[in-house]
Amino acid sequence: MVVDSGRRRPTIEDVAAAAGVSRGTVSRVLNGGINVSPAALAAVNKAIKQTGYVVNTHARSLVTQRSGSVAFILSEPQEKFFEDPNFQVLLRGCTQALAAHDMPLLLSIADSEPDRERVVRFISGGHIDGALLVSTHAGNPVIGRLASLGIPTVACGLPIGHEQELAYVAVNEAEGGRLATAHLAGLGRRRIATITGPLDTPGGRDRLAGYREALSQAGIGYDQNLIVHGDYTRVSGQAAMEDLLRRAPDLDAVFVASDLMARGALDALERAGRSVPGDVAVVGFDDSPAASAGRPGLTTVRQPFKRVCEEMVRLLLALLDGQEPAAVILPVELVRRDTA
Amino acid sequence: MVVDSGRRRPTIEDVAAAAGVSRGTVSRVLNGGINVSPAALAAVNKAIKQTGYVVNTHARSLVTQRSGSVAFILSEPQEKFFEDPNFQVLLRGCTQALAAHDMPLLLSIADSEPDRERVVRFISGGHIDGALLVSTHAGNPVIGRLASLGIPTVACGLPIGHEQELAYVAVNEAEGGRLATAHLAGLGRRRIATITGPLDTPGGRDRLAGYREALSQAGIGYDQNLIVHGDYTRVSGQAAMEDLLRRAPDLDAVFVASDLMARGALDALERAGRSVPGDVAVVGFDDSPAASAGRPGLTTVRQPFKRVCEEMVRLLLALLDGQEPAAVILPVELVRRDTA
Repeated sequence: MVVDSGRRRPTIEDVAAAAGVSRGTVSRVLNGGINVSPAALAAVNKAIKQTGYVVNTHARSLVTQRSGSVAFILSEPQEKFFEDPNFQVLLRGCTQALAAHDMPLLLSIADSEPDRERVVRFISGGHIDGALLVSTHAGNPVIGRLASLGIPTVACGLPIGHEQELAYVAVNEAEGGRLATAHLAGLGRRRIATITGPLDTPGGRDRLAGYREALSQAGIGYDQNLIVHGDYTRVSGQAAMEDLLRRAPDLDAVFVASDLMARGALDALERAGRSVPGDVAVVGFDDSPAASAGRPGLTTVRQPFKRVCEEMVRLLLALLDGQEPAAVILPVELVRRDTA
Repeated sequence: MVVDSGRRRPTIEDVAAAAGVSRGTVSRVLNGGINVSPAALAAVNKAIKQTGYVVNTHARSLVTQRSGSVAFILSEPQEKFFEDPNFQVLLRGCTQALAAHDMPLLLSIADSEPDRERVVRFISGGHIDGALLVSTHAGNPVIGRLASLGIPTVACGLPIGHEQELAYVAVNEAEGGRLATAHLAGLGRRRIATITGPLDTPGGRDRLAGYREALSQAGIGYDQNLIVHGDYTRVSGQAAMEDLLRRAPDLDAVFVASDLMARGALDALERAGRSVPGDVAVVGFDDSPAASAGRPGLTTVRQPFKRVCEEMVRLLLALLDGQEPAAVILPVELVRRDTA
């Protein structure tokens, strides 16, 4: 294919030609990927990247009366947003996925009830086409409000209590917990502890279920002393590990339900003079920069964040096109580094 | 004053009573503080906090046709947003100042030209009442676009090249550089270096001017070898300090134009085996968490960030009420800690 000086803006036809599919298939991918085969989806996405194609939503908004923008609602304290690298990865991923459709992302950090009320009011005023909702403790009132107002919304993670009415993208949390724990059991560890997330979050609840399943599969008995709870912060991981070492000094492994908490747990193990992985093997969850940056490299369960963001944006565009809310569950995988 | 169970929502009359001023004075403060004496302004702001008063902009927007929301546009790479604590402090401060008027803040991180174009297009569609613009390299095209579209905008820091058309809140940058350098000269230092910010930013340009003025006032000669440039990141501060130590190994002090760069400079000094403040005295700029958290505590020039945010919101509300753009210049002060 001969390309001119590169200054011409790529068209939908360029994408179709590069992907070897019809213009209609490209259009269906851009509008949410409904009725597109996985192979065609992959080819079109690759062609979008190759050509640098950007959807002209400005022209489209003249027809659709949309604002052409999406709110990324983070229902967490501002401190957590800056501390936890997961949020940065999600923000970047969703910004990029929306940029491919020429849609701006507006971030709202809505921690308090008045904050949430303000942003819901703003969105319900028609200023935002839809919302990507991140961090979803069960009973978070934003979920119910957005759902009852009929605002197209996609949650990141299972929206506990709203699974039937809300679109969401989640990873297979239970399988992740099972993989991590089975890996520890496979290393010969028998006193395997866990530090969970809050039990009103899917990551807290379901990763714990996976831990239990793996213990059962390995024929290892269940011990309540080996289970403590954190809140996904580093400091909570450290406190939880200290607690575990008091309650079960003979533990030889720990599955920690987030990389950031796992870093805190490693701090506590170092202070206590326990070697890793010699005395205690550690597996985290996320494969965020908290796992890959810094020493030792953390063995962890990888969440495919980039794919999560792409699927969230795709589901949102499908909702905007009148499709029913769908759920996407993505696989996880174990990433081995230094700690287990 | 007898207050009932505390569930009644405080009214503008409650604020007036608590402040000992008229209802009209409170109203003028809420609408931008025009024609209000500093004493009344302080009393009303105190009373707003005491009473927990929140403006009912929902009712107001029915009259004014406003969206009731403000965009906080950060025209910097996302990495800088997460690395530099100044942005977090500004985001929190502006969110709180807007919350007092029941207005939500929507954050837009617009680093690339397409990002900027998207957010300007969204704002120009009437979905946002006005913009708070943070980080303003000279020639940043967002400034000109917002100004030419007539979108009420308040810049944080002097908007170089648009000083006459745009409202802004800045600190006295030159006086800050002068204070810092004069403090070092007052300690008997004579080989005083500086690490500047980018010279197309007011903080880069004007803090350097203050440094020169202080040297001149102290009768210390000017040496180009003692001036190097950073980009406000920690890693740039470290590289600049290493550069300075090569160029002027006899230096005995350094004024660094941001706390984060100063932390990088301290890293370099420690590696080079120079004691602080014994061998080299160090003064930063900002008084952000980068100065106050961590060891050693950094002597620095304090920017009144909370006041900056309050004044930005106040100026924006004044613009929305049809007032002309104004500039507010706030004073700085030296905060002594361990490094000078």
